[in-house]
Amino acid sequence: MEHERIVILAHEKFPGRAKTALGVMRYGDQEVKAVLDRDRAGERVNDHVGDVQDAPIVSSFEEAYEAADGDITALYIGIAPIGGGFEDSWRGDVIDAIEAGCDIVSGLHYFLSEDEEFATLAAEHDVELWDVREPHADLTVAGGASADVDADVVLTVGTDCSVGKMTASYEIVEAARAHGIDAAFIPTGQTGIMIEGWGNPIDRVISDFTAGAVEEMILEVGDDHDLLVVEGQGSIVHPAYSAVTCGILHGAMADGLVLCHETGREVVHGYESFDLPPLSEYIRLYETLAAPIHETSVVAGALNTRNVADDEDAVAAIEEYAETIGAPAADPVRDGADAIVEAIVDGLGGELGAGGTTR
Amino acid sequence: MEHERIVILAHEKFPGRAKTALGVMRYGDQEVKAVLDRDRAGERVNDHVGDVQDAPIVSSFEEAYEAADGDITALYIGIAPIGGGFEDSWRGDVIDAIEAGCDIVSGLHYFLSEDEEFATLAAEHDVELWDVREPHADLTVAGGASADVDADVVLTVGTDCSVGKMTASYEIVEAARAHGIDAAFIPTGQTGIMIEGWGNPIDRVISDFTAGAVEEMILEVGDDHDLLVVEGQGSIVHPAYSAVTCGILHGAMADGLVLCHETGREVVHGYESFDLPPLSEYIRLYETLAAPIHETSVVAGALNTRNVADDEDAVAAIEEYAETIGAPAADPVRDGADAIVEAIVDGLGGELGAGGTTR
Repeated sequence: MEHERIVILAHEKFPGRAKTALGVMRYGDQEVKAVLDRDRAGERVNDHVGDVQDAPIVSSFEEAYEAADGDITALYIGIAPIGGGFEDSWRGDVIDAIEAGCDIVSGLHYFLSEDEEFATLAAEHDVELWDVREPHADLTVAGGASADVDADVVLTVGTDCSVGKMTASYEIVEAARAHGIDAAFIPTGQTGIMIEGWGNPIDRVISDFTAGAVEEMILEVGDDHDLLVVEGQGSIVHPAYSAVTCGILHGAMADGLVLCHETGREVVHGYESFDLPPLSEYIRLYETLAAPIHETSVVAGALNTRNVADDEDAVAAIEEYAETIGAPAADPVRDGADAIVEAIVDGLGGELGAGGTTR
Repeated sequence: MEHERIVILAHEKFPGRAKTALGVMRYGDQEVKAVLDRDRAGERVNDHVGDVQDAPIVSSFEEAYEAADGDITALYIGIAPIGGGFEDSWRGDVIDAIEAGCDIVSGLHYFLSEDEEFATLAAEHDVELWDVREPHADLTVAGGASADVDADVVLTVGTDCSVGKMTASYEIVEAARAHGIDAAFIPTGQTGIMIEGWGNPIDRVISDFTAGAVEEMILEVGDDHDLLVVEGQGSIVHPAYSAVTCGILHGAMADGLVLCHETGREVVHGYESFDLPPLSEYIRLYETLAAPIHETSVVAGALNTRNVADDEDAVAAIEEYAETIGAPAADPVRDGADAIVEAIVDGLGGELGAGGTTR
């Protein structure tokens, strides 16, 4: 499925609370024809965000469609309210998009394909309602085979949710490609799936299939690339989500891990009575838990310093982080991921990055 | 829901390959009116298994119904073919049971409630088709609250699948009760759920809800007992199922762990290219992984010695196991679980077992 020319719905939330929209604009290869935000109609994307393709911000799908001379193939829902529901004020835009022959791509918990009005209309107009959080029906248990693919596998692991694992993964893929490495992103969450146009939403699969859903993706593309970067989820000591993290760790059978952390994070986000353990303990847990399935080690760190205003302070924080984890580190947003990629190449052995397959 | 007078379907598999049937007969408080096994019709349960209530073995539900003068409230499916499908040769018995006004309880992957013929008939006769592997719709993420209940919580953890975690859990509950402790079993798999008449099938829930589905059960009954024994699943280093194990570990927030193992098990069952790590490594992994959520330790061991013919050899194996794990151990089937319960009482502090609530 290709969605090359798209409109992204981000009403009342662009850009600060439109994480999915920004992810697609930053890392996807879709051409963004317009962003829908009725609060900012008439402005442009680059008025707010500098490092992505520019596009007009308009108040409705209808306007976007006219401005693009009808050259639009899909509407993406680029925001997610708390709880993942569908807001009825978006209904008109979705209906107009379906009637204009556009597919709808959504990462909401609320499945558009189960909305009777949308489903009926989509059938009439022969368009697809793609709920990326709905796992496909053929998932099954892991076979312990991910290590058999030609590509080396790197997994981003975190100290908590929302520390920047997806962003770090994308920056690593981009930097690896700049180093001449044929790298691919393995999407495990809704934004990554929307960006890539494929993938398994690991947090929604049946728990028995958690590792299997990761393995399925690795087996599917692992012989076509030199390096796979698996987008991690959650944390191995998260009170609610550790099962997902553990399944990804064992399903990926990664050759190297990149430990992702955010400066100043000391307790679990949303579970503030739980302290984060020391960084050294995360490293020990991830490495010792992975080892019986596939030996691996933390080869680099990604530190999210968005909370650090001063550049020198950020440099100092990254240096301290690298020293603490005993591996090279960078803030991939501030500095790019070159240093991380070099550490991956060193950590996984010299052949990676020489071009071609590595084994 | 009460299913007090039941018939258990175990065609062609009783008793050796009828694990669910035997579990219900051994640990459930249902009165078993008959077992269906067309290969053994005319024999009795106690001809084959000594330590459970006796019952006739008959060839069809119709026969069982007549022999019981119609005093039957439910039919349990007591076997599960590889793959968990429904065998069509059972259809007549299920139909006869529904028409006789009996509920049907099944732990198969194949959901009887989605079988059109059964669903229609069940509606006509106002009986319930209870597929115990179908999670209920209200599950959600964990809140990190399991440690707040009045009861102490013990979790059975394993070195692999099928080493005897459910059996050990039941034997611990029975021995604890004999010690005057108000103990309850927290069911996490289909057989336990069928025995108890409630519970969440953890391996079938959405992976994000794995810990939450355990927590929900603990919060539901945790203030009504002194000790909860949570039935563990899988192993923390299983190539396919570790996500389930990890979610249970963090969702249960156990005060003590009982490490379950089978003599002679050296590789992962069904994944023979994966060696089991040393027992000391399991202890380290379970304890260090649990600690950031809730401090715990392995307080006892349960060794399944079913593969050891000689009693003295079994005693020696248990002694060696206890020494290796550094905690008291027993084979709960061979010896009962008294030693394990005493170790739990010692491990969790003196108040448990004094009767009444402990905190």
